[in-house]
Amino acid sequence: MKGKARAHSNIALIKYWGKSDEELNLPTSGSLSLTLDALYTDTYVSFEDNLNDDVFYLNNVLQNNTRVSRFIDIFRKLSGINKFALVKSTNNFPTASGLASSASGFAALAGALNVATGLNLGKKELSSIARRGSGSAARSIYGGFVEWITKGKESYGKMLDDANWDIGMIIVVLSQKEKAISSREGMKISKSTSPFYSKWVETSKSDLKNIKEAILKRDFEVMGDITERNSFLMHAIMISSNPVLLYWEPDTLNVIQMVKELRKDGIMCYLTIDAGANVNILCRLSQANLIKSHLCKTFNEESIIISKPGSGIKTLNISKDELYG
Amino acid sequence: MKGKARAHSNIALIKYWGKSDEELNLPTSGSLSLTLDALYTDTYVSFEDNLNDDVFYLNNVLQNNTRVSRFIDIFRKLSGINKFALVKSTNNFPTASGLASSASGFAALAGALNVATGLNLGKKELSSIARRGSGSAARSIYGGFVEWITKGKESYGKMLDDANWDIGMIIVVLSQKEKAISSREGMKISKSTSPFYSKWVETSKSDLKNIKEAILKRDFEVMGDITERNSFLMHAIMISSNPVLLYWEPDTLNVIQMVKELRKDGIMCYLTIDAGANVNILCRLSQANLIKSHLCKTFNEESIIISKPGSGIKTLNISKDELYG
Repeated sequence: MKGKARAHSNIALIKYWGKSDEELNLPTSGSLSLTLDALYTDTYVSFEDNLNDDVFYLNNVLQNNTRVSRFIDIFRKLSGINKFALVKSTNNFPTASGLASSASGFAALAGALNVATGLNLGKKELSSIARRGSGSAARSIYGGFVEWITKGKESYGKMLDDANWDIGMIIVVLSQKEKAISSREGMKISKSTSPFYSKWVETSKSDLKNIKEAILKRDFEVMGDITERNSFLMHAIMISSNPVLLYWEPDTLNVIQMVKELRKDGIMCYLTIDAGANVNILCRLSQANLIKSHLCKTFNEESIIISKPGSGIKTLNISKDELYG
Repeated sequence: MKGKARAHSNIALIKYWGKSDEELNLPTSGSLSLTLDALYTDTYVSFEDNLNDDVFYLNNVLQNNTRVSRFIDIFRKLSGINKFALVKSTNNFPTASGLASSASGFAALAGALNVATGLNLGKKELSSIARRGSGSAARSIYGGFVEWITKGKESYGKMLDDANWDIGMIIVVLSQKEKAISSREGMKISKSTSPFYSKWVETSKSDLKNIKEAILKRDFEVMGDITERNSFLMHAIMISSNPVLLYWEPDTLNVIQMVKELRKDGIMCYLTIDAGANVNILCRLSQANLIKSHLCKTFNEESIIISKPGSGIKTLNISKDELYG
């Protein structure tokens, strides 16, 4: 009746921006991400007899989150367990600031519930369920480069490659503010108002096909080029939405400029920006410190996070405090 | 054999971004602009016996500009004049910084050549010729709100409305640098690489139809809303181009934010950005000083230009210095 798991965040190289099914969280196009070692969520779940509602703590603060309860319902239904749950989640990074906290959050919750319910589902099934909590959580079940595949109503993550070939990601944290418009809301706005939306779906499909080929060939520059371009296409979709979705801040443009200059100097690295102001830089892990030192000329060291590729979810031991506390 | 004319710059509310014919400067979609009183070019032309090439001074600096010579060729062909020309042009604002210097430049040159050749062409014909120098120059022949109409190979400006109903424009000059990629080059890149380009052409057509209705109804808010949205759509096209055309600078985002805040405070004004970092704010002329005072909290007073609607080209008297100098 108790379980604990860790899941890592992921940054999409081919973006997820729009749902074909709001209820089931099915995407309008496939996506592909890199799981990040440096950013993760640890989640502890315990089904309890003496609760009259689910109780959810995030970073030790009690939350009022119906999404979490609806997500636990999926596991209650599958397992037949009829109790409320105590959930304690901890992110090692700022929540809802474009660092994909919902991806690691729902993946870790799925992993902990998998143990607590004793269901012992396989990763593919777990990924499919994690998706119901947050689309990108489907990808955080796995490590390395992960594709989110959808065939009809089957929709789940799948590892394409372990990314163990000198791949790194640098996150430049420019804003820890919560977004004015959530990704969930933004996607809806774009899908229904951008005149370019259907073309975005088409282009994403070919971008996905091409990046998979580049990854399997270990062609870093082609992979990076597709990554950066796909991110700009998503932002073009956001800017063409009504109301305009403009997540960038002035420093976002400064980092874009820096990445361009680094490439001119022969340091091959590529940017990708989610629905937020932060900039993620895909690079050679062996060059990450060099790139960081360039960025540190302008930004605080603490706002620059270097990550190697992360692994998939794993079960954690429950501490004595959690067991008896 | 001598002529002098003044033409004002214009800022497009429905943007021109792409040619269907490179040679003839025919646009892929119609556009509509406001002519600006505050920004203009004065151009003096004199056909001379003792020159063995055209000589072109811009702001008193000798230029090497084949576009100007090719443009004069059109007038030489029409008039039968077989001499080289001395051209002296003066902008009262920075050249090639997104302030549409080529629009007022080629319109003023057309006006001066019209006098110097004695052709005495009408405005419609003059607009059609000015277009060959720079597309947007077709609009600077006229004052107020001007549509650029294309029917087959006929392509010329036409005044829709004199804009004499409390209309103003504020130009926030953020950069006086020349663009890294000219509009001419950028348009080519977008047309051939943006996956959204054909949709942009479609959307522009309906934006143009709708803004014309709003202008004729004097519905300022609808006009402003279409203006701002059309500009963001053009920038979405730029951002979706390969290479990415990103003309914004960090302060561009700051002004975008300020315009949003002004509207929240009930001061209705709308932004439009050309291929450059500067932001133009369409407003009520009666509120322009109020808006300027808000902007002055962040920006230098000298970088903020208020303009009322401008008039069409006019012939200027030739000074004694020019006549005998």
